[in-house]
Amino acid sequence: MKAGYVNRILTVNLSDNTIKEEPIDPQVAEKYIGGKGYALYVFYHRYLKEYMAKGISPKDIDPLGPENVLAFTTGPITGIAGVPSPGRHHVMALKSPLTGSIASANSGGEFGAYMKFAGYDMIFIEGAAEKPVYLEIVNGHVEIKDASDLWGRNVFDTTRILKSRVKGENVSVACIGPAGENLVLFANIMNDEHRAAGRTGVGAIMGSKKLKAIVVSGNQKPQIANPEGFRELSKNLIERIRKNPVTGGGLPKYGTAVLVNIINQAGMLPYKNWQFGYNPEADKISGETLEKTYLIKRRPCWGCQIGCGRVVKVPFGPYQIMYSEGPEYESIWALGNDTGVMDLAAVIKANHLCDELGLDTITMGSTIATAMELYEKGYIPEEDLQGMDMKFGNAAAVVEAVWRTAYKAGFGAKLALGSKRLAEMYGAPELSMSVKGLEMPAYDPRGSKGIGLNYATANRGGCHVTGYTISPEILGLPQKIDPLTPEGKAQWVKIFQDLTSVVNSAVNCLFTTFEIGAKDYADLFNTIAGFNFTDSDVLKIGERIYNLERYIMSLYGFSAKDDTLPPRLTKEPMPEGPVKGQVVELDKMLAEYYKLRGWVDGVPTKEKLKELGIEL
Amino acid sequence: MKAGYVNRILTVNLSDNTIKEEPIDPQVAEKYIGGKGYALYVFYHRYLKEYMAKGISPKDIDPLGPENVLAFTTGPITGIAGVPSPGRHHVMALKSPLTGSIASANSGGEFGAYMKFAGYDMIFIEGAAEKPVYLEIVNGHVEIKDASDLWGRNVFDTTRILKSRVKGENVSVACIGPAGENLVLFANIMNDEHRAAGRTGVGAIMGSKKLKAIVVSGNQKPQIANPEGFRELSKNLIERIRKNPVTGGGLPKYGTAVLVNIINQAGMLPYKNWQFGYNPEADKISGETLEKTYLIKRRPCWGCQIGCGRVVKVPFGPYQIMYSEGPEYESIWALGNDTGVMDLAAVIKANHLCDELGLDTITMGSTIATAMELYEKGYIPEEDLQGMDMKFGNAAAVVEAVWRTAYKAGFGAKLALGSKRLAEMYGAPELSMSVKGLEMPAYDPRGSKGIGLNYATANRGGCHVTGYTISPEILGLPQKIDPLTPEGKAQWVKIFQDLTSVVNSAVNCLFTTFEIGAKDYADLFNTIAGFNFTDSDVLKIGERIYNLERYIMSLYGFSAKDDTLPPRLTKEPMPEGPVKGQVVELDKMLAEYYKLRGWVDGVPTKEKLKELGIEL
Repeated sequence: MKAGYVNRILTVNLSDNTIKEEPIDPQVAEKYIGGKGYALYVFYHRYLKEYMAKGISPKDIDPLGPENVLAFTTGPITGIAGVPSPGRHHVMALKSPLTGSIASANSGGEFGAYMKFAGYDMIFIEGAAEKPVYLEIVNGHVEIKDASDLWGRNVFDTTRILKSRVKGENVSVACIGPAGENLVLFANIMNDEHRAAGRTGVGAIMGSKKLKAIVVSGNQKPQIANPEGFRELSKNLIERIRKNPVTGGGLPKYGTAVLVNIINQAGMLPYKNWQFGYNPEADKISGETLEKTYLIKRRPCWGCQIGCGRVVKVPFGPYQIMYSEGPEYESIWALGNDTGVMDLAAVIKANHLCDELGLDTITMGSTIATAMELYEKGYIPEEDLQGMDMKFGNAAAVVEAVWRTAYKAGFGAKLALGSKRLAEMYGAPELSMSVKGLEMPAYDPRGSKGIGLNYATANRGGCHVTGYTISPEILGLPQKIDPLTPEGKAQWVKIFQDLTSVVNSAVNCLFTTFEIGAKDYADLFNTIAGFNFTDSDVLKIGERIYNLERYIMSLYGFSAKDDTLPPRLTKEPMPEGPVKGQVVELDKMLAEYYKLRGWVDGVPTKEKLKELGIEL
Repeated sequence: MKAGYVNRILTVNLSDNTIKEEPIDPQVAEKYIGGKGYALYVFYHRYLKEYMAKGISPKDIDPLGPENVLAFTTGPITGIAGVPSPGRHHVMALKSPLTGSIASANSGGEFGAYMKFAGYDMIFIEGAAEKPVYLEIVNGHVEIKDASDLWGRNVFDTTRILKSRVKGENVSVACIGPAGENLVLFANIMNDEHRAAGRTGVGAIMGSKKLKAIVVSGNQKPQIANPEGFRELSKNLIERIRKNPVTGGGLPKYGTAVLVNIINQAGMLPYKNWQFGYNPEADKISGETLEKTYLIKRRPCWGCQIGCGRVVKVPFGPYQIMYSEGPEYESIWALGNDTGVMDLAAVIKANHLCDELGLDTITMGSTIATAMELYEKGYIPEEDLQGMDMKFGNAAAVVEAVWRTAYKAGFGAKLALGSKRLAEMYGAPELSMSVKGLEMPAYDPRGSKGIGLNYATANRGGCHVTGYTISPEILGLPQKIDPLTPEGKAQWVKIFQDLTSVVNSAVNCLFTTFEIGAKDYADLFNTIAGFNFTDSDVLKIGERIYNLERYIMSLYGFSAKDDTLPPRLTKEPMPEGPVKGQVVELDKMLAEYYKLRGWVDGVPTKEKLKELGIEL
């Protein structure tokens, strides 16, 4: 038994209903930890090599075919009480239906911890069922069950029904809603009702496998390698987390939406599909306004000391909802600011429907915003909208667009393809604010150059949680750097991308990195799982994971040509606000980044792979 | 060739993909005309007798099983230019999933006329397909085609796509929306986008057969037996229709919603699930208000001189819709007055969603109203609503409830069962305002006793268009009678039920009967189809049809016990308004009615059947 793990990996094949188990491989764990890193190792060595040996090109893997593999992963510090924010898990798949790159999504709540308590560090799902099924996993006992009666049900119904069927300890449900069933390309996997593995369309993959849900329950607790050392460390880390102005101040009090005003003041809160970066009305949908209006209470993830989760209620009006959770900063931005909707109640309602039906709020909002710009500029003919008035600022249209997308009703069938395909379909691909097909989140890099480089180079596409340079560039953590210069940003991006790869393999919450760094992670891994890492070992592991992921992407056909940004960001100077006149000087940063990475044409060289100990 | 008909009946079996044709049987036509009457004859003699011969009880027919038979019917005066309002068709099925009685629903638009032009007087659908299909019928050429790509699509998309595929003359589409696919028990069949065969759940039957749509096209015109006589008659009838205050005045100018104020002034506009009959605010949702606010133009059915159809637009606000049709009086009442929603824009939006998704507006609104009373009275626990605040007057909840019902999302899965099952589920069956499981329409019979007797005895359940005694009782057509007395109402009800049976077999629009009567129908049948009927022949035919229908119902187990009204109408005196204190004296009227009908225990005697020439 390796401490920190429950030491079992589950593999379920839904085509032939086989269920297999294997232990954690200590050598793989030492090189890739768990979570995302371990899954990438398995993806490459177990699946991609086999496909290639059979003559199947990785390029030909259909993201919605049975050959795709979906993985639910935790790591050695998931579910360990006393670790800062250990209630997260990471979902991966060989290929995303939205981006064609590796699918990767992270979620909070209870599911990660409870999945481990149910007896598995990781679950790999192969094949596809003929009829709807769900997985029931209770203390190491696994069953594939009929889900015909659950198919078509929303996230809340599905969760409630499955929770009522499994009467054990620590029950949690991860499931898809109608959006996943209907193969909406940015459907997510919801767990614990309002928590989302919400990017790159992992819900559509689950839907294509006819896997409606996974319900877990159990009380298998991993060992701690050095309990005393861990106790000391835990005390220290939690105290620091509580004292940190972000993790102990802004996030608990205002939630992630504390960023609305901060980022708007920085002139980089994308407004109306990124036509602008400053919105004088942004405070109407800020975390501070939320706290004064619809907030009821907080709801932290399992074992979390930060507690950024919100519980809200809109008691009356056209967008009422008597109970909901969130909305997060990104959701408020995408469904509100980016679409020009300044009605916080409408944003809460749209966010609620995304949760209920299982849709990625970022891609949903961004795709609506793209549709609005397309419509206002005359690309979308009125008859295609079937009566919806898709103009910026139309709250009703945003709320309606959400359920229409999940059910592919009317114009929703087009929105369900995401902004890239939508904009291409109407002949204006430049209006999709996405990278590698993934819609970018709520930071305009014209005001924060490092995040622009990160968007361009993040393996999963336009993503903020791959290398969150907003922390130093805007928030000043761990130190303040000039956001507007491209100088030196490549190094920051690389370190953040590598460290994040470790966090997503640990698996715990990225928000901890506002306070704790590579050294702390080494201490966590060492005390909990008995490793013997230094801080540079930790960063090296992160770099290894990031490079393996990038290498796999190269097998899919990705290269430097895909490390790019929408032309709006590199060619249209910011029209107004605090960073007026700025563009992203991408080429310059990118050259430096590739050099630091040791990549040629956006792909790791053989030497680089060898240096990092990546065996092919 | 019999004049008036195109002389072909189509029978399609979706289980084994057989397509059969037969001519119209002149003897059946003489006794049952066409439309509803002819279909009932076929139902009994071809299907029910065969089932019984095989030892299958009619009681065991599953309305959603392949043994149910769905019929699209027209009659000799459908699609004849110059007949008043000839653009209707009648949809029937052996058994309704909502009521367990015979399914029966009438619709306007173009489909009826164009189906005849495509070469068929009637279409019978047997069996059930394994995968989604649609029927394409062009000038007598029939194909069963794959509808996999249409399944899941809304009514407007489906219609548009099929119209673009068939490029002939007079193309029309009848289809189901998601509600029919999802087997919502009151799903309807929509034709020409906004026209509905909207009662008794015929859409769910179509969904159970995996028949997404029927598209028709053609130019087969029936002969006229006596063209000169018909020309004279037509001129006379149309002139009278135009001069009649209802068909030439109120209906063209304000649509059917002209009734909102009239019926409210009579104190019998059901308000908040029939707790009240007068609403001081009703004018907010009246036809007059509609005409002053959201109305754009009229859209008549094929060949119609009345043109009650509305085209509307709600240009802004939370319930905006840039193009819609309707809403009809019944829809305004059900989705508005009955739920206490006085926001006409919200009513238009809810109505639009019913059309788009394929839901019966009357049952939808009534079921929401029942849910609201159940919730306000504490029968429905808050958690069942998943955040919806189901209180009377909540416009947002009504609009949201519609799409939730079509997709069975959250509480919508319960609403999808209709008010009877909903109220029973929550332990208060008396709060469903339905008869035989069919929700009653917008006339409280405590202010118009005849319509109460009609609700109780109408073969399809709580229905106004079986015997519309509102015409004499409230509108004074053909003569004004006292609405509050139960005296003499049995006779009126019987005549209206019989005449309506003829209209639905003709098939044309019931609104014509505000002006034209049995004698006129005899003239129409004689000049067009070469019959030799008197006015009493016409009423006898109607009686025959009504009795055959009732006889079939007796095979399903219906009897006098089912000819009843919700206790609110017979036991709770109207609390306020113009008819304060009134109840419906049902028993007295019912006894008289049975006597007039020659029925014992609500069922025609053998002597009665024989007298009417109904052979078993």
